Amino acid sequence: MDGLVASVSGSTLPHRGQHAVSSSAPLGVFDSGLGGLTVVRALREALAFENIVYLGDTARVPYGTRSAETVIRYARGCARVLIERSVKALVVACNTVSAVALDVLRAEFDLPIVGVVEPGAFAAVAAAEAAGLACGVMSNVGVLGTPGTIASLSYPRAVARLTTRFEVIGRAAPLLVPLVEEGWLDGDVPTLAVRRYLEPLIQANVGVIVLGCTHYPLLKSTIARVAAELAGRDVPIVDSAVATAQEVVRMMADGRIARNPADAVGELRLLVTDLPESFHASARRFLGQQAPAVTAIDLPPG
Amino acid sequence: MDGLVASVSGSTLPHRGQHAVSSSAPLGVFDSGLGGLTVVRALREALAFENIVYLGDTARVPYGTRSAETVIRYARGCARVLIERSVKALVVACNTVSAVALDVLRAEFDLPIVGVVEPGAFAAVAAAEAAGLACGVMSNVGVLGTPGTIASLSYPRAVARLTTRFEVIGRAAPLLVPLVEEGWLDGDVPTLAVRRYLEPLIQANVGVIVLGCTHYPLLKSTIARVAAELAGRDVPIVDSAVATAQEVVRMMADGRIARNPADAVGELRLLVTDLPESFHASARRFLGQQAPAVTAIDLPPG
Repeated sequence: MDGLVASVSGSTLPHRGQHAVSSSAPLGVFDSGLGGLTVVRALREALAFENIVYLGDTARVPYGTRSAETVIRYARGCARVLIERSVKALVVACNTVSAVALDVLRAEFDLPIVGVVEPGAFAAVAAAEAAGLACGVMSNVGVLGTPGTIASLSYPRAVARLTTRFEVIGRAAPLLVPLVEEGWLDGDVPTLAVRRYLEPLIQANVGVIVLGCTHYPLLKSTIARVAAELAGRDVPIVDSAVATAQEVVRMMADGRIARNPADAVGELRLLVTDLPESFHASARRFLGQQAPAVTAIDLPPG
Repeated sequence: MDGLVASVSGSTLPHRGQHAVSSSAPLGVFDSGLGGLTVVRALREALAFENIVYLGDTARVPYGTRSAETVIRYARGCARVLIERSVKALVVACNTVSAVALDVLRAEFDLPIVGVVEPGAFAAVAAAEAAGLACGVMSNVGVLGTPGTIASLSYPRAVARLTTRFEVIGRAAPLLVPLVEEGWLDGDVPTLAVRRYLEPLIQANVGVIVLGCTHYPLLKSTIARVAAELAGRDVPIVDSAVATAQEVVRMMADGRIARNPADAVGELRLLVTDLPESFHASARRFLGQQAPAVTAIDLPPG
């Protein structure tokens, strides 16, 4: 436990109506591990003046292979840690939590909560419409994700809430996260693995491919190259980390909780539940810059 | 919780001296997930008449990326669950636990405990000596494992306790577990990934390769083929699941706790801490036969 946790340890959790929104408060971002740092990177590019507290639940990563009940329990614990640190909004930078726990979190906690699935679906529909207008042919929306995200049908449902004009075709791509964590981002192995995952999507006439996992932006150039080779034309790639940052910008303007852009450059704090050293060593690849110090915390049970 | 847990819930944990060894009791085997089933398969081939209770801690898989402190805590919880079920011996079918927690488990629990590292190291030394005698040149011992197993230096230490004649060269191969779980056991992607992991080992003149992870036996034929291509000759592959089963046979004969081979064919019970359905679906690949029903249990906290 570091000093900040100790200083609020006597406080109770905020409940509905008690959440005091302060524009100078940090944004809270959490994920099961490293992947959510691609969302942090996009947030810092869009909102350089905002403070961010990031929690990576590295003691319990990965979430994608857990039951929905377990993921909800873990997500609740992560949200509580960040709310105890007085964040003004929560960004759920994890596809699995966004797919199965967002409604529960929104019902239980009284602050704005943004996931990665809805913004990704929104950007995908926009891209598919643009592609359809450009070439005059309606196409489908392809989604690459972890087995848990694809099985949850969260992207087809999120797209169906926006429009019924596009069919969503999901493809579980379980090797892509380990490839990113191994640092194999181009070359023969990632190219062949990506090709195997993309082939059925391209055969199913997808006009856009959504990166439905926060690890995948690191493979974006390989995915774009292989998709273009297979399709014989460029296929737009929707990066849900970028789409989520855009949604956070919009939400903060709506809620008038954005920090004054004239303030100093925002600070980034990194918390993890296990292995701070190895998290720090890998974080640079995801953030695109040196990571600040990483603090290990304990999650309360429950 | 199933009936058996309920029926012993009032009992206390066995302590030193209290462990009543019964030859008709089951063997307890645990792993963080599916991989340990390759050890179960080898045990059932060697000891068809023994009953086995297997626990896969699927709620907290993988262990390989956790801190030693966390792995010890998890391992203690798994051991307690099996000891509550009156197992006569524990087989730690997990390289990570064998590397970092075996001494703690042996100190805390009063029953025979076999890990996978020591038997694998023993078999590797035997194979390297045989290879050296055959070709007249001393070679090194190569080990493929997860990053956690390689970083723990458990194989070099285990070999050094047996002999100082061989240098042990470890290679972390983090993509091999996801390849096995994806079911990509041969073809271009596993061949290229295995080649990338084996090249530095073959260049370092290894005369034998230890499969230092319980998932890897499913990739054994690909590993053997690529190793032979790179080395220009066959390279013996040591399967630590088979080596561990041989050690269990020896230990049970020494301790006179083997079940009477004239008894009926042994039963296999499978317990997991999350996702019993997907465990059941994948178990066949590891067991080489249909899996029995899978029971979900809760691990007590601690």
